[in-house]
Amino acid sequence: MTDLATLKNHQFRLARRPVGTPVKEDWQETTEAVQPPPQGGLVVQTLALSLDPAMRGWMNEGKSYIAPVGIGEVMRAGGIGRVVASSHAKFPEGMLVSGVFGVQSYATLTAEQAAKTGLFPVDTRMGSVTQWLNVLGMPGMTAYFGLLDVGQPRPGDTVVVSGAAGAVGQTVGQLARIKGCRVVGIAGGRAKCDWVVGELGFDACIDYKGGNVRAGLKEHCPKGVDVYFDNVGGDILDEVLAKLAMHARIVICGAISQYNNTTPIQGPKNYLSLLVHRARMQGMVVFDYAERYPQAVAELAGYLKDGRMKSREDVVRGLENFPQALNGLFTGANFGKLVLQVAD
Amino acid sequence: MTDLATLKNHQFRLARRPVGTPVKEDWQETTEAVQPPPQGGLVVQTLALSLDPAMRGWMNEGKSYIAPVGIGEVMRAGGIGRVVASSHAKFPEGMLVSGVFGVQSYATLTAEQAAKTGLFPVDTRMGSVTQWLNVLGMPGMTAYFGLLDVGQPRPGDTVVVSGAAGAVGQTVGQLARIKGCRVVGIAGGRAKCDWVVGELGFDACIDYKGGNVRAGLKEHCPKGVDVYFDNVGGDILDEVLAKLAMHARIVICGAISQYNNTTPIQGPKNYLSLLVHRARMQGMVVFDYAERYPQAVAELAGYLKDGRMKSREDVVRGLENFPQALNGLFTGANFGKLVLQVAD
Repeated sequence: MTDLATLKNHQFRLARRPVGTPVKEDWQETTEAVQPPPQGGLVVQTLALSLDPAMRGWMNEGKSYIAPVGIGEVMRAGGIGRVVASSHAKFPEGMLVSGVFGVQSYATLTAEQAAKTGLFPVDTRMGSVTQWLNVLGMPGMTAYFGLLDVGQPRPGDTVVVSGAAGAVGQTVGQLARIKGCRVVGIAGGRAKCDWVVGELGFDACIDYKGGNVRAGLKEHCPKGVDVYFDNVGGDILDEVLAKLAMHARIVICGAISQYNNTTPIQGPKNYLSLLVHRARMQGMVVFDYAERYPQAVAELAGYLKDGRMKSREDVVRGLENFPQALNGLFTGANFGKLVLQVAD
Repeated sequence: MTDLATLKNHQFRLARRPVGTPVKEDWQETTEAVQPPPQGGLVVQTLALSLDPAMRGWMNEGKSYIAPVGIGEVMRAGGIGRVVASSHAKFPEGMLVSGVFGVQSYATLTAEQAAKTGLFPVDTRMGSVTQWLNVLGMPGMTAYFGLLDVGQPRPGDTVVVSGAAGAVGQTVGQLARIKGCRVVGIAGGRAKCDWVVGELGFDACIDYKGGNVRAGLKEHCPKGVDVYFDNVGGDILDEVLAKLAMHARIVICGAISQYNNTTPIQGPKNYLSLLVHRARMQGMVVFDYAERYPQAVAELAGYLKDGRMKSREDVVRGLENFPQALNGLFTGANFGKLVLQVAD
């Protein structure tokens, strides 16, 4: 058993609520002793953390789909870790697990916390540690249930996905192709667009930084957009609304363009296109599908194995780089699923 | 057979595309001879015309769910008329019919036009001429299919409807009550609110002109809004978005607050509430349900007959009053379904 007494737990705590883009002063770095495992609980060493746009929302006050992180609390984050001390029957020492560990090098969990946050064993024969934070983790689950359950694509449909090179977008697009759809991505920069077309097999990709989204949609979606999987909101949502096909489905998964706003959210001024096209716009939160994760993981791991699906992770090393790495999500600095590697 | 040669056809034609609220100069009044019925066609004398918010949209250039009215064309309008000349087998002289006659005192239709615009006989034992433009007409059909098919209310749900005293709103609210829902209206002014609560049996009504919509929703929808039937858009849509219950359904039927905008449509800045509440917002156009109108008419006529549903029409007399009457829709001057009585 690891000698916990020799270990230090490095943590990032929320010092105050950010206004706009988070700055250094919004975080407090702390170091404390690793707490021993409670009766029936366990201690997990964090190996890798998932950095996600949704984390920005958790830093705000107020009602949402999940409680905000409290001031002074360790920042919430999901990750993969190794059990280093345990009296939990299902999670023995040495096991790799996926769970909500927070931005810290060690997490001590009660049995109740482990259950409530959905701790589960990770099988690296199905995918690598970083893939378990990507295709086989929350982004993959979000893509799977958002696209299939909410978007309901049919073979031959034109599916558009924004944030196409991002964690959710890359899986949405590849899954839509596997299901027989024509897939058009929207991403920032030539390199990302080239990758989703050349490597992932998207039919086309519109570079919103270098090109014209309206012209791109017109060119690549001549019959209109049947399914739009929206990760970004803002102007791009409005452009897609203007190009809907009849009975289109818009999956509202996120709105990264709006998360650091200091002004009100930009509402989609073209929303009456929903009326004209008898279309719907529907929000989703991945946690609702928790009971069906194993089914989705099995299907997606199969695609990874047979090569029909690829994944890309952008790995930043070192817990200390958390604040800058997180902010990179909002400028599009990352290329692929952003992972913070904390230990090996 | 009526001597058509003695009759004059008074018409309102669209002279130009309005900017903002239509003005006198946007219309051209013409008088011409009544055209004789073509072979297999008919001539209908307009008795009453339906004045609807959607008409404002038909006056604009550009793609929508229906082609715009062309410059110089008779303004499109649905109505009830009496067949005064006919060689159509199904619509003999003397029959009352519902159809799209335009803002004119006589409409001459080919058999093809009659079929394409869905001309059908009106049975005044089921409802009066004005009720055939209200509960048994397009507003009633819109309410019926929008509420039941798109909104999918369940007994016990809280249903909110804006434009509650209007043509669509009055039927939405009464139908939701009949289906076992708790119904909260939003209307402009004390008189309308008192009527929908006192006469129509809504559980509550929020006066958006005299009161505070946010406070009203908080008071009357303590468990949130399960179904919102939106006729108005704008700030009220945003207020309701902020009060959604989980898995709420928003029916986008119209946005009368925005139709005379000279600036872009106001997008719902609270649309991410759809994500938080796993809710959906869906547009509908009544014409899609044409095959099922008879079923809806039969059900609604039954409610009118047994007294479970009431209707109110605001009747303006005289074709010449068309422009002012139409504009009244946008200021809320009408109380109940607005009907232009053209002849008796």
